[in-house]
Amino acid sequence: MKNKVIIAMVGFGNIGSYFYKTLLKNKKLIALKTGKIPIIKYISAKNLKKNRKTKIPKSKWVKNSLSLVYLKDVDIIIELIGGSEGMAKKLVFSALKNKKHVITANKSLIAKYGDELSKIAEKNKVNLEYEASVAGGVPIIRSIKQGLIANKISKIYGILNGTTNFILSTMEKSGKPFNDVLSKAKKLGFAESNPVSDLNGNDAADKIKILSSLAFNKKISNEKILVEGIQNINLVDIIHAKSLGYKIKLLGISEIRKNKLVQRVHPCLVVKNSYIGNIDGVLNAIIVDGFPVGRSILQGEGAGPGPTTSAIISDLCSILRENINYPFGVSSLLRKRIQNFDISNHICSSYLRIEVKDIPGVLSSITKNFAKNHISIKNLIQLPDKKNKKADIIIITHENLEKNFNKLLLNLSKNNFVTQRPTFIRIEKV
Amino acid sequence: MKNKVIIAMVGFGNIGSYFYKTLLKNKKLIALKTGKIPIIKYISAKNLKKNRKTKIPKSKWVKNSLSLVYLKDVDIIIELIGGSEGMAKKLVFSALKNKKHVITANKSLIAKYGDELSKIAEKNKVNLEYEASVAGGVPIIRSIKQGLIANKISKIYGILNGTTNFILSTMEKSGKPFNDVLSKAKKLGFAESNPVSDLNGNDAADKIKILSSLAFNKKISNEKILVEGIQNINLVDIIHAKSLGYKIKLLGISEIRKNKLVQRVHPCLVVKNSYIGNIDGVLNAIIVDGFPVGRSILQGEGAGPGPTTSAIISDLCSILRENINYPFGVSSLLRKRIQNFDISNHICSSYLRIEVKDIPGVLSSITKNFAKNHISIKNLIQLPDKKNKKADIIIITHENLEKNFNKLLLNLSKNNFVTQRPTFIRIEKV
Repeated sequence: MKNKVIIAMVGFGNIGSYFYKTLLKNKKLIALKTGKIPIIKYISAKNLKKNRKTKIPKSKWVKNSLSLVYLKDVDIIIELIGGSEGMAKKLVFSALKNKKHVITANKSLIAKYGDELSKIAEKNKVNLEYEASVAGGVPIIRSIKQGLIANKISKIYGILNGTTNFILSTMEKSGKPFNDVLSKAKKLGFAESNPVSDLNGNDAADKIKILSSLAFNKKISNEKILVEGIQNINLVDIIHAKSLGYKIKLLGISEIRKNKLVQRVHPCLVVKNSYIGNIDGVLNAIIVDGFPVGRSILQGEGAGPGPTTSAIISDLCSILRENINYPFGVSSLLRKRIQNFDISNHICSSYLRIEVKDIPGVLSSITKNFAKNHISIKNLIQLPDKKNKKADIIIITHENLEKNFNKLLLNLSKNNFVTQRPTFIRIEKV
Repeated sequence: MKNKVIIAMVGFGNIGSYFYKTLLKNKKLIALKTGKIPIIKYISAKNLKKNRKTKIPKSKWVKNSLSLVYLKDVDIIIELIGGSEGMAKKLVFSALKNKKHVITANKSLIAKYGDELSKIAEKNKVNLEYEASVAGGVPIIRSIKQGLIANKISKIYGILNGTTNFILSTMEKSGKPFNDVLSKAKKLGFAESNPVSDLNGNDAADKIKILSSLAFNKKISNEKILVEGIQNINLVDIIHAKSLGYKIKLLGISEIRKNKLVQRVHPCLVVKNSYIGNIDGVLNAIIVDGFPVGRSILQGEGAGPGPTTSAIISDLCSILRENINYPFGVSSLLRKRIQNFDISNHICSSYLRIEVKDIPGVLSSITKNFAKNHISIKNLIQLPDKKNKKADIIIITHENLEKNFNKLLLNLSKNNFVTQRPTFIRIEKV
């Protein structure tokens, strides 16, 4: 590699412009640390004239993003467009095919096409780096590939989405309902104007798929996994959980059970004083259980220009130092598929809130539904709302199979005393 | 580098033998990940015949450890002897001089001779790796050098010694005094038979020196720094701290203030519900404040064969992948000395427990000592012990200068009402 390394970046939004400014500022230090001088020579984005705080220097502007991959002097393409399809996909595929190193912050692209992309990168002996795609400020990808390389990882899980963690912990602290807190999150820049993929768990699902693949040295799973978001979490659930000694957290969880992969993303009741229970606000935290290391925890800001830039520059330095590693730690040839564990056999205890008519016979009818499905009840709290002739029944169950809980929920939905779809939240041992 | 990489290890105690067994078990996976097969061909230790669970294979035994550095086929020397002088020092210096890569878990060696060793390694283009020397199971050194490379770090601090953290948190939970808990720690293998360097803070001081140097890209400080251990922490202090909303933790803290380096190791009162307040038992945790990343936290087991082996193997893999980096992240030529901040100008609030005679006039005399040194009192609790005609005065002060606290302690020691050397613990904002 030459002394000067030429970078083309595509995408110049919040993250892109922040990265651009930070790199300029840190160029000297990076050169000292890596022996190479990184130079952003080309910048492309959807629209040159968009109103930006940081203007794109005209001398660097390239209208046709895809043309960058054919420029001989370009060493590294940095993709900051986002999305698993369209321009981002075209750009990254064609950059790797043209033997350009690629840095991307694009979790959905990596979660969907990481295996294919990795193969091309390995064949062409270029880097595909994506530290920023999972928990920006937490150097988890590099830690799995390097710092924790010796370990047989059995479980990796954590809080992978800052937006939802902010919403849940702010609801708990302020006692304000979901929609109010969501508006606040948008105002503070902690939620996007369209936060659907954060709220429905898809964002965390992309991340846990990437982490699983790295932790267990397997191909990225393309099977359907259990993904539930926080849209239906009600303030009363958070309050009840608290009074029972729990907090509600949206977790991404991946583990190997009986040589199969259990991947899931869903709200969980976790013990209030547990480590993960104490992670509030927009923070991300990832827990790795491995042998021989034991339990390792990494925590930091998950998103935003600063943490994302920190991750992108660590990717860049890895390329500048000519550390060409397999994108997923081992050769694509060795990364086998792994079957998904049948989630209907997953075992957990759970929290249910069942809204019922407040008339005699209700409790007996509800508990019959539980008995029929062999689900035993650990705690039951009845909270009558006399004025509205309703009652909330809060139940903590003993452990049981996911499929039995599903049957129970079906039975409850057909129970004439039940006025609303019950809330069902799994309890996670953390 | 050849396909097979020959390793000579020196030291075969708990850590050494565990590493040896683990490497044998993981050889294949390491070869897959790095493309190189690591082979331990030579083992040396003080005594071949020592009673060990894992015997040293006779075919690998080399009596004269120092001779290993002259063997042509040896690529890597792993030093697991310990201590900053004697054989460990001789071995590591002479290995690097003879162009052998070195892996060491030896914090006192690196803290004392890291700069010199680094120079030799750089000149001879070999690696000097020491991930295991600080917080074994926490990949902090690699994270600073790689994952967090983009950041201007302003502060790095944390719980760096598992033995003392176990003792303090067990005293708090069990209500048992120091000596009882220390005995328990020894029985459980959490404290060495001679735990002096853990208890007096020197172990944590070595570690914070190494971390400072990495975080701030400076030479390792050889100036005297503030180091206080936990030997004088009394159970009553832990109980009082708790009732005031604090826990007592031994922290290593390093930050840049006015272009000078503030390094200190001492017991701290930290808010009970803070992150660091919740780290109990033998865990280590390190907090890095950097720009642009924000706050990053890494937590894990600090010592023991498993975590240490995890770190040593990550060092090994780095060498196998031929990632020859500067041992301290940047060239030795660029790492300048930095002056120590004059600790007497350090500002904090503090906790004091003053044992006094229970006679009239005491409080006025004591508070006069405070007033004289311009130290203002935030809380004062007087706890009379009528039977022994004594009283404990617990004081939380407002912020003031270290030098004023020193003068206060001197005044108090000369105060005729004071029966014992007062306990003085700094309160740390975390």
